[in-house]
Amino acid sequence: MNRPDLDLAFMLQYENIAWYENGAVRILDRRVYPRTVSFVTCTHYGEVAQAIADMVTQSAGPYTAAAMGMALAAYECRDRSEAEQRAFLLRAADCIANARPTTAKRMAHICRTMLDAAEQAWKDGKPVDEAIKSRAIEANNSRYEKIGRIATHLVDKFPQNGTILTQCFAETIVGMMLREARARGKQLRIFCPETRPYFQGARLTATVCYEMGFDVTVITDNMPAFVMQHEHVDVFTSAADVITADGHVVNKVGTFQIAIAAKHLGVPYYVTGAPDLMHRGVDDVKIEFRDPALVLEAMGVKTARDGVKGYYPAFDITPPELVTGVVTDRGVFSPFALSDYGTVDAYEVVV
Amino acid sequence: MNRPDLDLAFMLQYENIAWYENGAVRILDRRVYPRTVSFVTCTHYGEVAQAIADMVTQSAGPYTAAAMGMALAAYECRDRSEAEQRAFLLRAADCIANARPTTAKRMAHICRTMLDAAEQAWKDGKPVDEAIKSRAIEANNSRYEKIGRIATHLVDKFPQNGTILTQCFAETIVGMMLREARARGKQLRIFCPETRPYFQGARLTATVCYEMGFDVTVITDNMPAFVMQHEHVDVFTSAADVITADGHVVNKVGTFQIAIAAKHLGVPYYVTGAPDLMHRGVDDVKIEFRDPALVLEAMGVKTARDGVKGYYPAFDITPPELVTGVVTDRGVFSPFALSDYGTVDAYEVVV
Repeated sequence: MNRPDLDLAFMLQYENIAWYENGAVRILDRRVYPRTVSFVTCTHYGEVAQAIADMVTQSAGPYTAAAMGMALAAYECRDRSEAEQRAFLLRAADCIANARPTTAKRMAHICRTMLDAAEQAWKDGKPVDEAIKSRAIEANNSRYEKIGRIATHLVDKFPQNGTILTQCFAETIVGMMLREARARGKQLRIFCPETRPYFQGARLTATVCYEMGFDVTVITDNMPAFVMQHEHVDVFTSAADVITADGHVVNKVGTFQIAIAAKHLGVPYYVTGAPDLMHRGVDDVKIEFRDPALVLEAMGVKTARDGVKGYYPAFDITPPELVTGVVTDRGVFSPFALSDYGTVDAYEVVV
Repeated sequence: MNRPDLDLAFMLQYENIAWYENGAVRILDRRVYPRTVSFVTCTHYGEVAQAIADMVTQSAGPYTAAAMGMALAAYECRDRSEAEQRAFLLRAADCIANARPTTAKRMAHICRTMLDAAEQAWKDGKPVDEAIKSRAIEANNSRYEKIGRIATHLVDKFPQNGTILTQCFAETIVGMMLREARARGKQLRIFCPETRPYFQGARLTATVCYEMGFDVTVITDNMPAFVMQHEHVDVFTSAADVITADGHVVNKVGTFQIAIAAKHLGVPYYVTGAPDLMHRGVDDVKIEFRDPALVLEAMGVKTARDGVKGYYPAFDITPPELVTGVVTDRGVFSPFALSDYGTVDAYEVVV
């Protein structure tokens, strides 16, 4: 791996890859990565929705998968009339968008964007699946550019030699953040909570950090406060599944309690992303509860005895008073002043 | 299992059993319980120290194991002169007491108590190993009585129908707390954080709660704040490895950040135990760092890739301003007024 020449192509291989080609969407199975590199192959859009629901892909992966799933849907109905194709794609959009409740609004927006690409293709008499795929790649490239700008603003907040605490998995922003830090010669030590029950922090975030040449340490999810107290953490940072227009951060469960501890211990918390005008406040957010059985096992091994219940909220919500700043492609904003950010295309800001 | 007739014998089977008999100490291996019920058999006191260091037994288990290990040491040197036996037991005491740094002072106190029993046995011309074993059982019984009183005061703090959040594993106090709650007809729902990396909460605490007939739910260690916010938790409670005389709580890593979140969310935190005059303040506490590799795996399966570091502080320290009350056998005290508790025999107050 050519670390000095790290570029967007390199970032892509860290993305939760979902790729449409030859009538199928192949999605990297992040549930077993990096121990095993395997792909889930979907030949029906419903399988893409299921893969998203089953957490085959995470972070920004579901958005790419949704867009590629729409290309697949277009392929599936390619021999029908335009009216039938339109109806088919609307059903596909509905199915894919609702794969995971917390991000349903953004997913619906992405699917609508892909429907726009389909309309254009019908007008131009071009293959609809390829038109959607091109639009998905275009949106991803635009997203990478924005994330690059976010990374620049985020790294401004890091000292020249410092310690960073992450939460969960946001590979693209983590990767770009580290690339930016390295370009500026910043020496960072990174602590990654493991992020139960899926261990995204241990398996994925830590892997990115290590492969990009940084000093990275995994901790269990009960250690962030201790680490902030004892290891001179300069910045706690996370991405977000949603940042509401009024400054609430919806992110992997655990973010809330780390943010509380960070505030208590005087560690700044910077969240990356952009305000999402489709979510004005917490009332517009539906917290997704996942299969409780996943909390009762670890790496496939049962931990609790039969009869004991599990409980698995996938996300929690951190209120703006616990957020030091929202780091966007347009600069760093107070969570209480996100209207200054302006409007935004929901698909392009996902980190 | 005869639940209504639950008594001290029942509690004993939940204790981290360590038992001296026929020249050997058998210790229930809590690392694999309840999936597997197996025992580590020690025929040399050094093996007892190693078992304690290796976390074969937890909670109050190491204290019982230490006392029984001293009985074993007495057996090992039984054919030597009294002076040689004394020297042998002093070496054993030193070895066992230092098996785990955080509790070294209390362990040393226990070993000294066992040495007193040996002195008496030499005076009386009785078998030293049996004298030490009797003294260990006597101390345990006295401890159970005290824990029963602690449980009474703790359950006073619970509503008639309520939700309790625990932390890590303190089987005896949890068991007695639940027995007391049931006796008073209190309906409790219990949330147990799983307690990485050993999963004591999922494996042990949840098992006790379930077997005593309560509604018990395991959560991962990133969920306590969410649960307190969404599930109307009435009380957060934990035991402690040490409560310093000035009100700091040394307990399983994670306690600190739950206590911060509890304070933030207005949930009272009651710690059970008694002030430890051997530890005046945090400067007298040595935080034990354990094998970092344990943080990089779960239930024996590796989570992070090679090259990623681990970090494993076994305990953290919660300052008195985050503690609502210290629930002792003599009543509930402010963490700022622990001198009101009076003096205490370190061995007997362990919960």
